[in-house]
Amino acid sequence: MVVGIIGLGLIGGSMAIDLKKDSRESEILGYDRSELHLQTAVKLGIIDRAVDLEGIMEADVIVLAVPVGAAVDLLPWLLDRIDKQIVTDVGSTKASLCAQVENHPKRPQYVSAHPMAGTEFSGPWAARPGLFEGCAVIICDKEKSSMDALNAVTSLFHSLHMRPVYMNSVEHDMHAAYVSHISHISSFALALTVLEKEEDTRSIFNLASGGFSSTVRLAKSSKDMWTPIFADNAENILPVLDTYVEKMQAFRAAIAEGDIEKINGLIIEANRIKKILLK
Amino acid sequence: MVVGIIGLGLIGGSMAIDLKKDSRESEILGYDRSELHLQTAVKLGIIDRAVDLEGIMEADVIVLAVPVGAAVDLLPWLLDRIDKQIVTDVGSTKASLCAQVENHPKRPQYVSAHPMAGTEFSGPWAARPGLFEGCAVIICDKEKSSMDALNAVTSLFHSLHMRPVYMNSVEHDMHAAYVSHISHISSFALALTVLEKEEDTRSIFNLASGGFSSTVRLAKSSKDMWTPIFADNAENILPVLDTYVEKMQAFRAAIAEGDIEKINGLIIEANRIKKILLK
Repeated sequence: MVVGIIGLGLIGGSMAIDLKKDSRESEILGYDRSELHLQTAVKLGIIDRAVDLEGIMEADVIVLAVPVGAAVDLLPWLLDRIDKQIVTDVGSTKASLCAQVENHPKRPQYVSAHPMAGTEFSGPWAARPGLFEGCAVIICDKEKSSMDALNAVTSLFHSLHMRPVYMNSVEHDMHAAYVSHISHISSFALALTVLEKEEDTRSIFNLASGGFSSTVRLAKSSKDMWTPIFADNAENILPVLDTYVEKMQAFRAAIAEGDIEKINGLIIEANRIKKILLK
Repeated sequence: MVVGIIGLGLIGGSMAIDLKKDSRESEILGYDRSELHLQTAVKLGIIDRAVDLEGIMEADVIVLAVPVGAAVDLLPWLLDRIDKQIVTDVGSTKASLCAQVENHPKRPQYVSAHPMAGTEFSGPWAARPGLFEGCAVIICDKEKSSMDALNAVTSLFHSLHMRPVYMNSVEHDMHAAYVSHISHISSFALALTVLEKEEDTRSIFNLASGGFSSTVRLAKSSKDMWTPIFADNAENILPVLDTYVEKMQAFRAAIAEGDIEKINGLIIEANRIKKILLK
């Protein structure tokens, strides 16, 4: 099977690295609109062959691994041109993209996917083996995809050692706002807070223990990936932001009042996350 | 040198483990007001000998490794009883503790310290070797300590492979509010937000990628450690909380308006944290 990857950043590049090792994939074609990214991917041996957007049509399965804003234009463009090829994507928001191609005659050849893996780094330099190992891949609106397309795409994610989870695209975006998008906004806000008040960067460096580093890690993430996600999923993100600010205000009130019982209660409640996230 | 550790949790226990390996320390005595913690520390071989609070006086250097609320009572109690012993502590807030003993005749025998290391776990079961390796230890108000006391305590932290950083206790608490305390509150608030709205815990589990896990990790932290810190450092924490909420509201406004330039600007600004935190 020939796999064609459009977008050779962290996700597309990391997929290419692991798929190249899998004997079922005969060739990995790659395209990136940045010539630098494309040549880097060739140089690092991430892909077998660089092609242009027309050349990607040689693939049996095409993976769209571009920021969500770009996918909204590229996905219909691809569906207009494919013959028997299967198309999947890896975007972090799914509802608007699924709605965009809902009535496209080639819709059954498309599988809407979101691999739940990543790091705060970007570009082909950030691509690494084993990124997806053991993670979930959310497959959205599977009833809109043909069985052949689902089988091909599930098999591709299986060879990355991912476990498929099925979800409605609208529900996906709501859940993702809570579990993924708000984490990034809270981390960006943390970085902004510290940077504004701590002009003495030496003190940040000295006082930053593992706790601060892990909480602020996502604040290193790229605007090119995250701004389109926030814009696309605003409807779900805004109420989550409001709830989050309410929780911060609950802490503020308890701390301002010196109400030990109330602070204890908030922490005990928050500790329940342990039962869900064991690692 | 005999070292006596009061409080055999994550920090006290991890110190004991590494100090036992160091040939300069002849014996590690331990005390914990929890009989279960004390017996566990003996059973796990973390300390050489369990003693009571009177027995800890056999040590040359006494390390107070208890929550900050308890230290405010225990430190004066210790200073009242020591002869030539040196006392240090490892609490996360320093100003009120330093103020508490400022005029104590034995103040020169006390060194106020804050090792910048930890995990979200607690108790002697959480103690582990190498926890402090390469981290900073903040030594506060060093001019109030005798040279002998400073030398003994710095040497102790050196044998844990920590680098000393000197700071005023009042400044320490202000910086710690930004770099450490707010991270914990933002993580607790994140957990509370997700737990309140996501009754479907299966979805949290499936959608939680590494990003969410690292941001919410600190929400597993113990109330016994953190409530006293928030209460003690309220004065510094409250304005940081306000700045943090302002930053969240700036994101909210930009997302609500769909203002791509504004969202980009906030992320680019937050990304500056990269230059300070390289890891």
